[in-house]
Amino acid sequence: MEQDFQNQVGPEVVELIVADRLAEAAALYQTADPDPDETRAFFGSLDSATAAAFVSAITDESKAREVLLWLPPEQVGPMIGELDPPVAAALIGQLPSDERADVLASLDDDARTAIQSQLPAEARADAAALLQYPPDTAGGLMETELLKFPTTTTVREAIRDLRSNQERYAQIGVQYIYLIGDNRRLAGVAPLRDLMLAPEDAPLATLIRREPATLRDTDDLHEVANAFDEHTFIALPVVDSNGVLLGVVNRADASESEQHQTEDQYRVSQGIVGGEELRSMPVALRLRRRTAWLGINLLLCLGGAAVIALHQETLAKAIVVAAVLPVVSATSGNAAMQAAAVSIRELTLGIIEPRTWRRVLAHELSLAVLMAIPLGLGVAALARLWGADWTIGAAVGGAMAINALVAIAIGAICPLVLRRFEVDPALASGPIATTMADVSGFALTLTLVAWAS
Amino acid sequence: MEQDFQNQVGPEVVELIVADRLAEAAALYQTADPDPDETRAFFGSLDSATAAAFVSAITDESKAREVLLWLPPEQVGPMIGELDPPVAAALIGQLPSDERADVLASLDDDARTAIQSQLPAEARADAAALLQYPPDTAGGLMETELLKFPTTTTVREAIRDLRSNQERYAQIGVQYIYLIGDNRRLAGVAPLRDLMLAPEDAPLATLIRREPATLRDTDDLHEVANAFDEHTFIALPVVDSNGVLLGVVNRADASESEQHQTEDQYRVSQGIVGGEELRSMPVALRLRRRTAWLGINLLLCLGGAAVIALHQETLAKAIVVAAVLPVVSATSGNAAMQAAAVSIRELTLGIIEPRTWRRVLAHELSLAVLMAIPLGLGVAALARLWGADWTIGAAVGGAMAINALVAIAIGAICPLVLRRFEVDPALASGPIATTMADVSGFALTLTLVAWAS
Repeated sequence: MEQDFQNQVGPEVVELIVADRLAEAAALYQTADPDPDETRAFFGSLDSATAAAFVSAITDESKAREVLLWLPPEQVGPMIGELDPPVAAALIGQLPSDERADVLASLDDDARTAIQSQLPAEARADAAALLQYPPDTAGGLMETELLKFPTTTTVREAIRDLRSNQERYAQIGVQYIYLIGDNRRLAGVAPLRDLMLAPEDAPLATLIRREPATLRDTDDLHEVANAFDEHTFIALPVVDSNGVLLGVVNRADASESEQHQTEDQYRVSQGIVGGEELRSMPVALRLRRRTAWLGINLLLCLGGAAVIALHQETLAKAIVVAAVLPVVSATSGNAAMQAAAVSIRELTLGIIEPRTWRRVLAHELSLAVLMAIPLGLGVAALARLWGADWTIGAAVGGAMAINALVAIAIGAICPLVLRRFEVDPALASGPIATTMADVSGFALTLTLVAWAS
Repeated sequence: MEQDFQNQVGPEVVELIVADRLAEAAALYQTADPDPDETRAFFGSLDSATAAAFVSAITDESKAREVLLWLPPEQVGPMIGELDPPVAAALIGQLPSDERADVLASLDDDARTAIQSQLPAEARADAAALLQYPPDTAGGLMETELLKFPTTTTVREAIRDLRSNQERYAQIGVQYIYLIGDNRRLAGVAPLRDLMLAPEDAPLATLIRREPATLRDTDDLHEVANAFDEHTFIALPVVDSNGVLLGVVNRADASESEQHQTEDQYRVSQGIVGGEELRSMPVALRLRRRTAWLGINLLLCLGGAAVIALHQETLAKAIVVAAVLPVVSATSGNAAMQAAAVSIRELTLGIIEPRTWRRVLAHELSLAVLMAIPLGLGVAALARLWGADWTIGAAVGGAMAINALVAIAIGAICPLVLRRFEVDPALASGPIATTMADVSGFALTLTLVAWAS
């Protein structure tokens, strides 16, 4: 156990946990009051079952709530799943509605149903409402805690309500009041400070300055982000198709969700595909996910390998080419990945679309020609250095240059094609583009060498 | 020109720009009132010089400000750099202090100095203060617009100030008031709603409930994120070493900055290394950055290629092995990347550290053994299929299995070593781990094949 807290009781807490003296361990932990970093490091060193037993032994509700909020969601889910449903329900009952729904969504159906049925009525209803939305939509991002009044309420009445519920509203961080008109429809939004500056007898309707900016519950993350770019508000209300107020999305939550999406893209591009992996997860799950991905890539690279297997005779005549093949493969693959990364980025920003592929290709090929020439010359020189004659050198150099063009074009276009067919470009572009670059690279090199020799 | 706005005047705007009738183009653009997505797509299709001329022709200040806020920073910098300093200063003078500093930071020294000198005095001082901090620190993230009062001000006086500056404060989105005590030190923070609920004659000092949560100007992004995890406030004040209030960091800005960091990691892992690339950038810059990265990787993959070049005789005796080599290389490289991605993620979360490498290795190797066996068997079967005899098959299968272990171990440990020496793991782990996996994979395969044949 290497992690520790500022006041150095970390090892002692662990000893108590190992000795199964959980109450004492939890008491000592609460005294140590670790910050978010220390919390993540500490829980990262426990397996899910131990972590679950330990967190349920924490008596201070606000401390247990902090732990759940600070740990990454992929650690909280399995931990909650280990607990008895009433204990689990009591723990996640502490969380804001959106975080609670996220934890519930990460559980399997049985565990979720069991825990949901143990929640208090209001939290149960909120969870049911939020769980019907995919996580990356306005409905999935919203929280249901908000402050709303009928438009006919007076400023004085609203301030009186604020005063008497001060503590609760401070906890849910109220910034805006939402004004409800006929048929539960959202009529307007006003920042709290406007309430302070308005005449006390005025009805809240007088605070409405303009049509409120809203999100639809079905808006996807990109639309949510676009709306937050367009409006400077720190939160936007979510309405259904009838304009009924359902909840509110905070700018920070939307931004955090975008960050998770980027993290997923990154993770997936590195071959962690089935979902987030932490080393505290069960080995069987990690093994299954990692080998599934490696297996697919193994199959894909057979394409290139088969090309070589078919050209064994050519290779036998110029064995030095065997040393050049991995260079052609790696360099073409890297060049394809660069082009794909730029396309993925521009797709994300909305600068390009599948139907603008001609412009993408034109932009990319002018650059690709300039890149292909030095790469071809470099590889030709390399082959000479390893003892190939001039004609073989020219053949492999030419193959490298042509294949760089091919690879860059494939890399640039592949994400657009994938997006067109609604496959995640971050997931599939890398393997597809590098496989195609390998196949064409090996075929080009060995064909040109066969002609030359 | 494929982009268009909802009311379909896009092509017309472009025609006017091409005809150099910029005033008319800008007028039409303002009528169209494109949203952030449309704005990015539209400007993404213009080169920097044209974009600069066009944006400076927009007469509605708030529209021009929106354009600058909505475009990605890597597009705004070059655009501003194209403008005459007075025009550029007038444009970025519209931006919040933190965004203005970001744009200035992206310019070269001459352009920055020229534009800064044209800013109004207050903005110039703010920019100078913010530019002294690296962008990913609390000082670099903060904005200087905030609402502060001496602790001796009464609630009535503060409300009067709020009332008379209502418009300006609404624009900067005031949520908290900051209370200043002796020596300009930050004495406390209060949410605006507390002001509303307090007796009018009370001095603001009575609103202070606890020691304020603060950031130090030198805190890095990780510390800032940790503080926002720890506290639920939507903004945190930034102080210097004397406790003097310097500015305020918004939760959403911190979160957005984390997102950019993740995007950078992703980008860099895909070989876009010198900085963000968009196809609207000059070809020379894109060429230089992309080939620099490809060149380094070309040099790195020479390691593996040299191993093959040294074993030409072995290969000539069992030419089928040439087809297996890229499979060993790609599979080992992918396995190394997976392990590296998990280490990078756990480093980011703070779960592991360079000194916990033993635990990382132990966790990883138990998984690696289980992955190596099926990979070895698969590659052995493949070699048989392509005509190798049993001994060669066993040799390449064994090499694959051993190299999978080696590659996974290298991948898992490499990010820790890089972090230890303060090199960005996201940047260097991929190339280093795959190169080492190639060298050991080729050497293992060809050595075992030499023994077997």
